[in-house]
Amino acid sequence: MTDTRPGTGTPAESKGNWGRWGPEDERGALNLIEPAGVRAAAHEITTGRSYSLALPIARGNQPAFDFRGSPQRLTLVSQTDAMYDGYEGGEDVGSNEDVLIIPSHNLTHMDALCHVQAKGRFYNGFPADTFRSHTGAGRCGIDKLGAFATRAVLLDLPRHFDTPHLEAGYKITAADLTACAERQGVEVRSGDALLVRTGYLDEYKATEAAGREPSFAQPGLSLDAVEYVRAHDICAVGADNSAIECIPFDDRFLSVHIALLVESGVPLLEHLWLTDLAAAMAEAETYSCLLCVSPLPVTGATGSPINPVAIV
Amino acid sequence: MTDTRPGTGTPAESKGNWGRWGPEDERGALNLIEPAGVRAAAHEITTGRSYSLALPIARGNQPAFDFRGSPQRLTLVSQTDAMYDGYEGGEDVGSNEDVLIIPSHNLTHMDALCHVQAKGRFYNGFPADTFRSHTGAGRCGIDKLGAFATRAVLLDLPRHFDTPHLEAGYKITAADLTACAERQGVEVRSGDALLVRTGYLDEYKATEAAGREPSFAQPGLSLDAVEYVRAHDICAVGADNSAIECIPFDDRFLSVHIALLVESGVPLLEHLWLTDLAAAMAEAETYSCLLCVSPLPVTGATGSPINPVAIV
Amino acid sequence: MTDTRPGTGTPAESKGNWGRWGPEDERGALNLIEPAGVRAAAHEITTGRSYSLALPIARGNQPAFDFRGSPQRLTLVSQTDAMYDGYEGGEDVGSNEDVLIIPSHNLTHMDALCHVQAKGRFYNGFPADTFRSHTGAGRCGIDKLGAFATRAVLLDLPRHFDTPHLEAGYKITAADLTACAERQGVEVRSGDALLVRTGYLDEYKATEAAGREPSFAQPGLSLDAVEYVRAHDICAVGADNSAIECIPFDDRFLSVHIALLVESGVPLLEHLWLTDLAAAMAEAETYSCLLCVSPLPVTGATGSPINPVAIV
Amino acid sequence: MTDTRPGTGTPAESKGNWGRWGPEDERGALNLIEPAGVRAAAHEITTGRSYSLALPIARGNQPAFDFRGSPQRLTLVSQTDAMYDGYEGGEDVGSNEDVLIIPSHNLTHMDALCHVQAKGRFYNGFPADTFRSHTGAGRCGIDKLGAFATRAVLLDLPRHFDTPHLEAGYKITAADLTACAERQGVEVRSGDALLVRTGYLDEYKATEAAGREPSFAQPGLSLDAVEYVRAHDICAVGADNSAIECIPFDDRFLSVHIALLVESGVPLLEHLWLTDLAAAMAEAETYSCLLCVSPLPVTGATGSPINPVAIV
Repeated sequence: MTDTRPGTGTPAESKGNWGRWGPEDERGALNLIEPAGVRAAAHEITTGRSYSLALPIARGNQPAFDFRGSPQRLTLVSQTDAMYDGYEGGEDVGSNEDVLIIPSHNLTHMDALCHVQAKGRFYNGFPADTFRSHTGAGRCGIDKLGAFATRAVLLDLPRHFDTPHLEAGYKITAADLTACAERQGVEVRSGDALLVRTGYLDEYKATEAAGREPSFAQPGLSLDAVEYVRAHDICAVGADNSAIECIPFDDRFLSVHIALLVESGVPLLEHLWLTDLAAAMAEAETYSCLLCVSPLPVTGATGSPINPVAIV
Repeated sequence: MTDTRPGTGTPAESKGNWGRWGPEDERGALNLIEPAGVRAAAHEITTGRSYSLALPIARGNQPAFDFRGSPQRLTLVSQTDAMYDGYEGGEDVGSNEDVLIIPSHNLTHMDALCHVQAKGRFYNGFPADTFRSHTGAGRCGIDKLGAFATRAVLLDLPRHFDTPHLEAGYKITAADLTACAERQGVEVRSGDALLVRTGYLDEYKATEAAGREPSFAQPGLSLDAVEYVRAHDICAVGADNSAIECIPFDDRFLSVHIALLVESGVPLLEHLWLTDLAAAMAEAETYSCLLCVSPLPVTGATGSPINPVAIV
Repeated sequence: MTDTRPGTGTPAESKGNWGRWGPEDERGALNLIEPAGVRAAAHEITTGRSYSLALPIARGNQPAFDFRGSPQRLTLVSQTDAMYDGYEGGEDVGSNEDVLIIPSHNLTHMDALCHVQAKGRFYNGFPADTFRSHTGAGRCGIDKLGAFATRAVLLDLPRHFDTPHLEAGYKITAADLTACAERQGVEVRSGDALLVRTGYLDEYKATEAAGREPSFAQPGLSLDAVEYVRAHDICAVGADNSAIECIPFDDRFLSVHIALLVESGVPLLEHLWLTDLAAAMAEAETYSCLLCVSPLPVTGATGSPINPVAIV
Repeated sequence: MTDTRPGTGTPAESKGNWGRWGPEDERGALNLIEPAGVRAAAHEITTGRSYSLALPIARGNQPAFDFRGSPQRLTLVSQTDAMYDGYEGGEDVGSNEDVLIIPSHNLTHMDALCHVQAKGRFYNGFPADTFRSHTGAGRCGIDKLGAFATRAVLLDLPRHFDTPHLEAGYKITAADLTACAERQGVEVRSGDALLVRTGYLDEYKATEAAGREPSFAQPGLSLDAVEYVRAHDICAVGADNSAIECIPFDDRFLSVHIALLVESGVPLLEHLWLTDLAAAMAEAETYSCLLCVSPLPVTGATGSPINPVAIV
């Protein structure tokens, strides 16, 4: 008998990884992470140096849409408040605190599996209307993914192609990824995160610094590259561009988001700063690392700012 | 000749670690982290399992002061907006996004070294009035600390004392920490983070669940325990209580904050959820781990929500 | 032929004022205000004194639901920023600014006609799904109502019944309103706003001040009183309680909101502070005034904080 | 004996209106409003028509500084939440609510007397450091001014000079105001609000609509015009520009703000939309009206968005 409940991934509607980890699964490809693989990655660490992959949280560090508003740090309390004056011994002591107002999808961030829906469905077939205004994501929220550590492989395409950055709109193919990994001498394993460097943010910053308007067209993954991600059982994909995928989109609107987030349950890490890590890896002659990704566990959220740490 | 500039740590005003890493240092005890120690910690990982140390971001998960306001996830855009309807092929695609409003010092968070000042000075002697309303911390902001990975040792005091939780107000001493570490058979090394479990959050949750008002008095570090932190060159201290230190305070107002943050430059990790990690460590018969801490790099902020990952 | 478009107020679905001002109308009963009536009210002003009907924007001034969050004033810039130091002559000058975070339906506020829907419809039959997450109210937003001035009549029921405040849950009837107006010697005219004093907020404040938990049950309008509002062609109803209507609700869930907002297009003014105005009116021996109501014209908003001014 | 407390307006430091209404006064020139004058203005109303002087709250409606952030309406709850489903009879009922995030000094707003300080002093000599990060204005906050109604006179300078708008940087003089009032046949009385139309916002909108970058230089009051305001005992000044005063500033940095807010205690109403009112007044052949201004009574705030109503 066929189970026709939403989210059951029945044969008729099954796509990518729908149903692969059961009809109630909301973690998607993060299920591919095996402790043994994490341990192995940790044991392969050679330098012990850590690299932060986040851009500073400030205006103009990354391409941003106006509708999201800018991140704001507002002062909640400062030493001007002499807050502890009423307490014995508190006269000489003060504290400073902030309130942060942060759109979840600008900056360096992670997409939850509910971030995008296609034909009314999220990953694993959950109906898109499980997302509500006040309570947020009833299914596939960022809180269902959680923080994770895993082995990650960086593919440095500008270095591979000997160019400062890929061209705007360049569609990265599976063959590009395969050739780059081979040239770098790095093995891609099941459960790995894949970090793709395109050089886009370097170009963005240089263009901004020169007072010119950066292009929104971007190099990124094509649908063909999605097959590479699926074939290697990648647990998460990150890149130094805005949407992982190439813009203009490959074939159809948000096609790579749909293929990765919705169909395959692969979380995306966007606006990663990979330049320093790439340089360190080139020097250390290794292109794998232990990667820690710590989204804030906001109940029902569709994404979170992150500050991933790569240990080489 | 004596340098009398603020921040130079002249002999007369020198305290704890002021001047130890130079007059301009804003990273404090995080300077103690050595790549070799991180590599060693990574190589000692036995299970490869990861544990998130953050509480869910929601009301009532932790003791909170009203003046900070509650964290809010507000919907920025949802599938009701049919946002891509105007784009070719966008009719069947939708996205969900949030705006997060988060006080930096409720929840599971990390204190920046500018969070507390004493007698008008931050860590390393920087004047407290380098903190401004709009631009935030000119010195010792969370962005100066950055994300880090290091070896961490968990000291599980309730287990050591065979009690569900330490009593409210209990002052943890250096002798307690020494005895607990010895009993657990764990070595504390220079550059380690120290995670102290008091059982307070377990008690807090149980009290709330029972419909009773949780006590704000808390077990925590005494000034005596601060000496332990300094003697072992600990890089950061975390605990499952609100302020690391015991409440009522030991000796004087915010004394442990002043001794650790201001005098020693030791960042604090507060409201950590350590119960699951402690159970896993007991089972794995190891009390050290590789710890990743990823504060959001908000320019000038006094702290950040965090979701630390411990790999055992 | 019957027009079956949403919002056309066809005979079959017509209720209250649906269709009365045309199928596209979004102003509802505010259409009842006639310039001649406003002029007459202005000419009847006797003292020239103004009374603000808003509670201070602060916690605990009014009954509030936790889910809305508290209003916050956060400092955007202050003199600590020495903001103009870079400008010639700006060294001795400074400015202070805030960011306000305000839920639209706590505090003293005005409900837009899109605030409540019944059976999927707003006032005038507009479908409730014209409200979107990002863009807000496509129909009947607060921006469609706008600011207004009109004659207003205050009915001071506690004074009428010689009691400090009506009892919790008391259902105010049309007969109560008629008798009170007659006793006060005030005429209610078409286009007037009706201000109903119940004494609830006085009791709320006294209860809070005494350290007791205020009741959420409240005196307020019954469905019977709605007929009074309709019969007199009242343009807006305000009261010193949380929801205009009595709680527990009369007959069915939110019945008075549905009857006034949805069916009649009558905007509601909630948490008005009427005590000072009532005292002044008693002294001036007049129970009518010129009322100015100034909701913020936020595109697509469902309500707005207001600070109405009554000129006696 | 000379009182040397801050705020006492001793002869040596006395300026403009300091001390005029006593050493503790925080209402400034609003003290000039007399009920008899308000009543007279009300009785002079001829048409009974109301005009809102606020711009819609949205991006790009007025010149704005990036540092303030854009106003945001975020959805707190919508019918997707089916919020009342758990209540008997609540299944067919829904509500929509927002959270507003609003910088107090963009948009159409009113400056509190603490908005600007000069040489460390606010109006009446209060020290600028009475403003604190968390609690805001200890002196001269917007809550001390409150909502008010008064007679207002509009001086329509573009009409007077027969030009669509005054030139950028034009310094409006006392003689300009006198000549315009005389030509318009309007009397300016003690306690009146003065509304000055420059045409700047019309030009701003037209420039934006044409896809060109609007100039930040603006026509506005000169220091000479300040004397006019003082000589006529004006209670508040509003204009259709960003800062009342001309930009570039007259003589010195923020000179008119200092002269009006700090020295004279005159609140300012900025980014008023005066074009519709001016047209209506020209048609009604009257240039005075009854003006209601309703700042939100946010404790300690430095300003507030407003939606003033002018009744002609």
